[in-house]
Amino acid sequence: MKSPIPDYLKAVLESVRDQDSGAPAGYIDVLANADTSKVGVAIATVDGTVYSAGDDEVEFSIQSISKAFVYAMAICDAGLDGVLSKIGVEPSGNRFNELSLERESNRPMNPMINAGAITAHSMVVGPKATPEERVDRILASLSKLAGRQLSVDEDVYAAELKDAFRNIGLAYMLKSAGILECEPEDAVRGYIRQCSINVNVRDLAMMGATLANAGVHPVTGEALMSQCAVRQILSVMTTCGMYDGAGDWVSNIGIPAKSGVAGGIMGALPGQLGLATFSPRLDRRGNSVRGVAICKRLSADMGLHMMDISQIGKSTVRKSVLKVATAAVSDDHDHHGPIHQVPMFDLRGAVRFSGAELLTRTVARDLSQPEAHDAGSGCNAGCQAVVFSLRGAISLNSVAQRIVRENVSRLRRDGKKVFVVDPHDVLHVGDMAAEDRPVVVKTVSEATDFIAGTGCRILANDSD
Amino acid sequence: MKSPIPDYLKAVLESVRDQDSGAPAGYIDVLANADTSKVGVAIATVDGTVYSAGDDEVEFSIQSISKAFVYAMAICDAGLDGVLSKIGVEPSGNRFNELSLERESNRPMNPMINAGAITAHSMVVGPKATPEERVDRILASLSKLAGRQLSVDEDVYAAELKDAFRNIGLAYMLKSAGILECEPEDAVRGYIRQCSINVNVRDLAMMGATLANAGVHPVTGEALMSQCAVRQILSVMTTCGMYDGAGDWVSNIGIPAKSGVAGGIMGALPGQLGLATFSPRLDRRGNSVRGVAICKRLSADMGLHMMDISQIGKSTVRKSVLKVATAAVSDDHDHHGPIHQVPMFDLRGAVRFSGAELLTRTVARDLSQPEAHDAGSGCNAGCQAVVFSLRGAISLNSVAQRIVRENVSRLRRDGKKVFVVDPHDVLHVGDMAAEDRPVVVKTVSEATDFIAGTGCRILANDSD
Amino acid sequence: MKSPIPDYLKAVLESVRDQDSGAPAGYIDVLANADTSKVGVAIATVDGTVYSAGDDEVEFSIQSISKAFVYAMAICDAGLDGVLSKIGVEPSGNRFNELSLERESNRPMNPMINAGAITAHSMVVGPKATPEERVDRILASLSKLAGRQLSVDEDVYAAELKDAFRNIGLAYMLKSAGILECEPEDAVRGYIRQCSINVNVRDLAMMGATLANAGVHPVTGEALMSQCAVRQILSVMTTCGMYDGAGDWVSNIGIPAKSGVAGGIMGALPGQLGLATFSPRLDRRGNSVRGVAICKRLSADMGLHMMDISQIGKSTVRKSVLKVATAAVSDDHDHHGPIHQVPMFDLRGAVRFSGAELLTRTVARDLSQPEAHDAGSGCNAGCQAVVFSLRGAISLNSVAQRIVRENVSRLRRDGKKVFVVDPHDVLHVGDMAAEDRPVVVKTVSEATDFIAGTGCRILANDSD
Amino acid sequence: MKSPIPDYLKAVLESVRDQDSGAPAGYIDVLANADTSKVGVAIATVDGTVYSAGDDEVEFSIQSISKAFVYAMAICDAGLDGVLSKIGVEPSGNRFNELSLERESNRPMNPMINAGAITAHSMVVGPKATPEERVDRILASLSKLAGRQLSVDEDVYAAELKDAFRNIGLAYMLKSAGILECEPEDAVRGYIRQCSINVNVRDLAMMGATLANAGVHPVTGEALMSQCAVRQILSVMTTCGMYDGAGDWVSNIGIPAKSGVAGGIMGALPGQLGLATFSPRLDRRGNSVRGVAICKRLSADMGLHMMDISQIGKSTVRKSVLKVATAAVSDDHDHHGPIHQVPMFDLRGAVRFSGAELLTRTVARDLSQPEAHDAGSGCNAGCQAVVFSLRGAISLNSVAQRIVRENVSRLRRDGKKVFVVDPHDVLHVGDMAAEDRPVVVKTVSEATDFIAGTGCRILANDSD
Repeated sequence: MKSPIPDYLKAVLESVRDQDSGAPAGYIDVLANADTSKVGVAIATVDGTVYSAGDDEVEFSIQSISKAFVYAMAICDAGLDGVLSKIGVEPSGNRFNELSLERESNRPMNPMINAGAITAHSMVVGPKATPEERVDRILASLSKLAGRQLSVDEDVYAAELKDAFRNIGLAYMLKSAGILECEPEDAVRGYIRQCSINVNVRDLAMMGATLANAGVHPVTGEALMSQCAVRQILSVMTTCGMYDGAGDWVSNIGIPAKSGVAGGIMGALPGQLGLATFSPRLDRRGNSVRGVAICKRLSADMGLHMMDISQIGKSTVRKSVLKVATAAVSDDHDHHGPIHQVPMFDLRGAVRFSGAELLTRTVARDLSQPEAHDAGSGCNAGCQAVVFSLRGAISLNSVAQRIVRENVSRLRRDGKKVFVVDPHDVLHVGDMAAEDRPVVVKTVSEATDFIAGTGCRILANDSD
Repeated sequence: MKSPIPDYLKAVLESVRDQDSGAPAGYIDVLANADTSKVGVAIATVDGTVYSAGDDEVEFSIQSISKAFVYAMAICDAGLDGVLSKIGVEPSGNRFNELSLERESNRPMNPMINAGAITAHSMVVGPKATPEERVDRILASLSKLAGRQLSVDEDVYAAELKDAFRNIGLAYMLKSAGILECEPEDAVRGYIRQCSINVNVRDLAMMGATLANAGVHPVTGEALMSQCAVRQILSVMTTCGMYDGAGDWVSNIGIPAKSGVAGGIMGALPGQLGLATFSPRLDRRGNSVRGVAICKRLSADMGLHMMDISQIGKSTVRKSVLKVATAAVSDDHDHHGPIHQVPMFDLRGAVRFSGAELLTRTVARDLSQPEAHDAGSGCNAGCQAVVFSLRGAISLNSVAQRIVRENVSRLRRDGKKVFVVDPHDVLHVGDMAAEDRPVVVKTVSEATDFIAGTGCRILANDSD
Repeated sequence: MKSPIPDYLKAVLESVRDQDSGAPAGYIDVLANADTSKVGVAIATVDGTVYSAGDDEVEFSIQSISKAFVYAMAICDAGLDGVLSKIGVEPSGNRFNELSLERESNRPMNPMINAGAITAHSMVVGPKATPEERVDRILASLSKLAGRQLSVDEDVYAAELKDAFRNIGLAYMLKSAGILECEPEDAVRGYIRQCSINVNVRDLAMMGATLANAGVHPVTGEALMSQCAVRQILSVMTTCGMYDGAGDWVSNIGIPAKSGVAGGIMGALPGQLGLATFSPRLDRRGNSVRGVAICKRLSADMGLHMMDISQIGKSTVRKSVLKVATAAVSDDHDHHGPIHQVPMFDLRGAVRFSGAELLTRTVARDLSQPEAHDAGSGCNAGCQAVVFSLRGAISLNSVAQRIVRENVSRLRRDGKKVFVVDPHDVLHVGDMAAEDRPVVVKTVSEATDFIAGTGCRILANDSD
Repeated sequence: MKSPIPDYLKAVLESVRDQDSGAPAGYIDVLANADTSKVGVAIATVDGTVYSAGDDEVEFSIQSISKAFVYAMAICDAGLDGVLSKIGVEPSGNRFNELSLERESNRPMNPMINAGAITAHSMVVGPKATPEERVDRILASLSKLAGRQLSVDEDVYAAELKDAFRNIGLAYMLKSAGILECEPEDAVRGYIRQCSINVNVRDLAMMGATLANAGVHPVTGEALMSQCAVRQILSVMTTCGMYDGAGDWVSNIGIPAKSGVAGGIMGALPGQLGLATFSPRLDRRGNSVRGVAICKRLSADMGLHMMDISQIGKSTVRKSVLKVATAAVSDDHDHHGPIHQVPMFDLRGAVRFSGAELLTRTVARDLSQPEAHDAGSGCNAGCQAVVFSLRGAISLNSVAQRIVRENVSRLRRDGKKVFVVDPHDVLHVGDMAAEDRPVVVKTVSEATDFIAGTGCRILANDSD
């Protein structure tokens, strides 16, 4: 069976192919002469599968898309506070090549305008680094993100450098403002080299997927960026990524994204996927005409808008009842002692506040109806047992851990025996006070064995 | 057992109580004389539970927070395109009480500045509506959102009206720009009345939860706003909600939010919760000092930042093997015919692209290894069967439906018998071509019964 | 003999008649429908002669040209400091109908933008004045300036009032900013009425000539504005008069001027003349196309640029020698006593610093060469005399008075007898200390008579 | 006798000496360490006399004051149109070190902001000039203006160059905008060298006097700048010279001026004088505190405000009557023929439009009353004569020439004999048609001799 996704991408791509408004960037010949018939798209999932269609192997210079990743590298190398002391996070309202310094702080408004991007470049590795060290670090890091060795397009580099007066101007003014610590021309040369690195849409999609995956590369599993840096860069992409139409992009497409003047767009939807498009014709804002159209279509079709509601919270708690037969006096297999009905609360998925909160409410409501358990049986032990199953929980964030532990503690104080099925240790009970800790087991059977007191078996399970 | 959440909220609230910088809004006495010792917080989940702490019953005027909801009402009453023709979506970079019209279109930059909010107010009900009709509609709608009858604070209204010169000025300039269709002073009077509606933090949290729940009221289940309107307003809150510090708010707190000059803040995290805070002292940007501190703490503690990664995609597909015993020739219970190993793919949660894509890959990989099934048995029927379980799927969005159906169709064309366990009809197979449709059943047993051809039972199930 | 000036004006007017670019103001029909074939020009000298050509009797609404005169009236009624506390003097860099308030002070940037003009209007008569009183005062004053009774064009007034939303908006915002003290709508109604007063180019030229004549009406001699107010309004016309092209206007034309949207332009060159043009088609800045062309031509032809150099300083001092025959011992008419050569310094024109300074130098140089006087004669009295003639001095400003008096005093202390011929009392010797005062006479003969000691006559005078 | 002017200047200087607010420019040590006790003032007349007081020999770097003169040099070397294609003339409303380019044209707003000044510098000599050639030209020209050899302060130059990042940034951006043709760093180095030239207040006052004297050096008489360049630079100084307070400066002081960061101010009042002040403490706008105070005092005391009215127009025409005795039949000295009363119109000063216009009116009014002449005498020749005296006319500008000639022509056509006393040939009758030309003579006697037909003498002359 063949996956339908490539066919879908092909269909989307064909639906925009006839959009031929706009023109490629004209400021240097090597971009102005781009083959405007090219169009490509790629999607990479957070577990590393890449789908693509069209001209997915055509290389183009990464240009401003590099700003997002180099900002993350600067945060990694200089710390978030260090970077925030030099570069702001507000939309500038002006064009990307304006100086746009904030009053008082003198900071460039954000890292997506050239002034901020040159500053971010200068903070990579460290203030004493040589220009080569910075460029090497950036090329190596982008290559790791792409999952293959990238290289600089020397023609683009040479052409951009020849016409770099404005960026050199910005850099001198940043130096004057006390923002830039290195030589202005070094920073610009390095920044242009960073922008001249060649990529294709599959590379960019994988880079986006790494952002969507909290900085962990989907294929290699390597943590290439800290969670903090990723959150920061995704936030800035949201408010400042698409030049001067942030509000329009957020309300229409709703995917943190960054575009480049060579015609690329890279997007990242947290927890979901990275995506990339390429087509050289640009609209008046400087974004690829077909690229924007593809992103719009993908967002609408695939429900990718970050403000679309996913009602995941509701699905993470399941209540079931374990029927545990206590040991029989005889060894007759067909006879056993009283059967206890033990409540089990099954928490699934990546649990955040809303899941943990729902668990709390479910537990509280359930246990306030004791008659529901052991009805009509002479239960005297099992009815004091409660099981939490975390088998299906991928992760608990800190507030979820806190709430679940608090549930355990309170049940313990109410005299309950609490069992937690936690094969992957997502609850970290080791951090709890000894008297509050539950019994942690790897499987439900283990829990019921405990409860049964002997090797009794589960009779049935009304969960799923 | 008591929920730990109220205690947590109380602790957060106490941790900010001593922040006494800032001052209440001074432009009218009734706000200037607010009791600055008051501080309250509330959280409402998308299924309608409200937690609160502190001065959670103290009423204050909703002020600018109303802008978000009235913008949604305008979209409801005039259509999104109608509203977009009069009000933009970009951050203005200027203060909230500047005119800030876009060139050419003359539109106020966004609905969160006064000029845009007065315009949105004027579009409620319709251009021929009387001022009373508009205010009645707004009061009724906000009351529904709050879940109780709200009322106007006549003292606030009278005081604001007396000092409304600037807003009247804005309204006349909007009239001059061809944006406002009604009488300028009527629009301002209505707008001020809308801002003077009294709420408490529990009301605001429930309003926010309705946004977080795609416009469906968590308690009443009534669809109060269209999904489109909700997506729009959450997008605009993201880029323009917190006055001139959008980038700072998004990167630090990451919850779409709106604040009001009386000291309220209302936030909404899609799919998760609504939250609200109240405390009268404002910072220089006009946001409640303690409110911002509480939101920051909640975001950090509770993992509410919208750019934090939830790896939900990974948890939605489970592969298992159903062992189906075909009917035995004799009726000896202990003997049966050959046992088939039927693959079952279990899709759970609110399925969007990444879940459906994962399913596709899992299926494709699995079926390319046919030896894994029926190994060592003379299987001749069950090995052609495939089961998809959607029992645990809350919803499939449109792209997920399309992908799952496409999987089914392709397997059918490969000669497989496909069974879909879909008790809640989330797949909508009725939309599929007749020859592609799977067999839809309500339970796994029903599927195995089909497969077994007789009332055979499931021997075991290696899932969970 | 007929004056050539009207012919000249006619020639200039014809040279621009075929300039038919631009369009009349379109915001109200009564202006949009103006007869665009009309073109008129007038010049008024500071002594009240008016020359005109073309449609010099056609009336049109004064519009923004009134701003200059009403600003002067506000200075008259509220004092310069009072007006400066409410209205700035800097170019705004924005369009005339922007609010353009200064930070901190909240003042509209200058009285030539609408916000400043509405404020100036509100300050006429006084804060407690009724709207009618203000309009009456303005109409009466403009009529005095024009030299005939003017009246309001009620059609223009009604049309402007109907479309006054923007100005009403500005007025409310000025009220909100604490600048406007009266009711916003009253101020706008009065302001529009002021703008709707009808004038023709001869009226405007006379108004301009009054400004050029330091506020004194050239015909009636009435002081209609204080010198201080005139200096202020001419300064503001220089930097802010011609909408957003102040620098262009100053460097090209160099005449303080103000234009109106009905097609009028009024200029005033201090000490020289007032001028006015009328033609309805406006350029993109809002200035009359033909009017600007006429002004440019007049400035170039007539040397009216205020930065053109007039070497007046050099012409104001003439040195001559009076030959005074002392009385003869006999009464024989043909015989007389020794002839003294008395230096006379003749100061002419409107004397300012440079004239007085030149006098000082001439005197100092001359008296350091005593041998030049009385050479070869047994002079014993006349050589100690010095005559200053102020017969040809129109006026001495304060520094010139100070310098001339100081010259007198110093000569007196050097032992000289100083005679001042000052028939119009321009030196005000009454202010001098008694011991420093010169002998003041009405004619040169009177001086020589004194010197001769008897009725001797002047033999000759090498001055002319 | 000693001139009182130095004493006056000393008194003014002492009156501001205790103003010790502000601080010297702090961006380089060599300025920050300036001796703040220094204060000097100088005035230079248009005929070359310099008065000064205080620290009039203390040298300081000319800084931004050079911008005015280098702009004039650029106009000289590249033509006004060439310069206007690269540099605008509008106030920028921003700080002097902002880029402030005009839309579309990309021109820096004016030559007084750094971006415009660097551009002006680059246009001196020509686009192919070496940096040294430009600096040599500027140093030589400023030296000629000062009347002595100036030199560069190498300490200032070195310090400024070390901290020139912002100016280099501006220059690169000008290069990028297509404005700058030379190497950006060459332009900045040259510009800084130009700013580092040392001057004292006497130098600056003489430079200002050259501007006031239409570009002709008051002492050497050399025409150092074209009239057109001078008019342009004075216009630009008026609207943009004093940083961001143009309106304030024009209305308060009214002298075209330019200030420099080292504490100098240079002003020029057309036709009157140049002035200069020096004191290092600057106000928040960057102008010398004491310098501004001195200029304000001088303007008020000396009537230097350019909008103050000089009523020169009224003084330039004098009507007199020449009594010409025709030749007697006998040679008896005491008897002569009939005495004719010949009207003489005496035009004095630097005649512009208003003087010529007054002449026209005086002539027209006078000649319409023929009975006034020759009353009671058998006049038959002299009464047809009219004399214009231009002995006292320094100059006639073109419109004045045209009007006077037109008067002559019309009188000729009316049958009059016209005599023009024009010893300095200010009327240029050679340009007139032969039939219109008057009889031109050198003295009044020559005219009367003509009229008398014989050697008759003037009996009396009621003009003086």
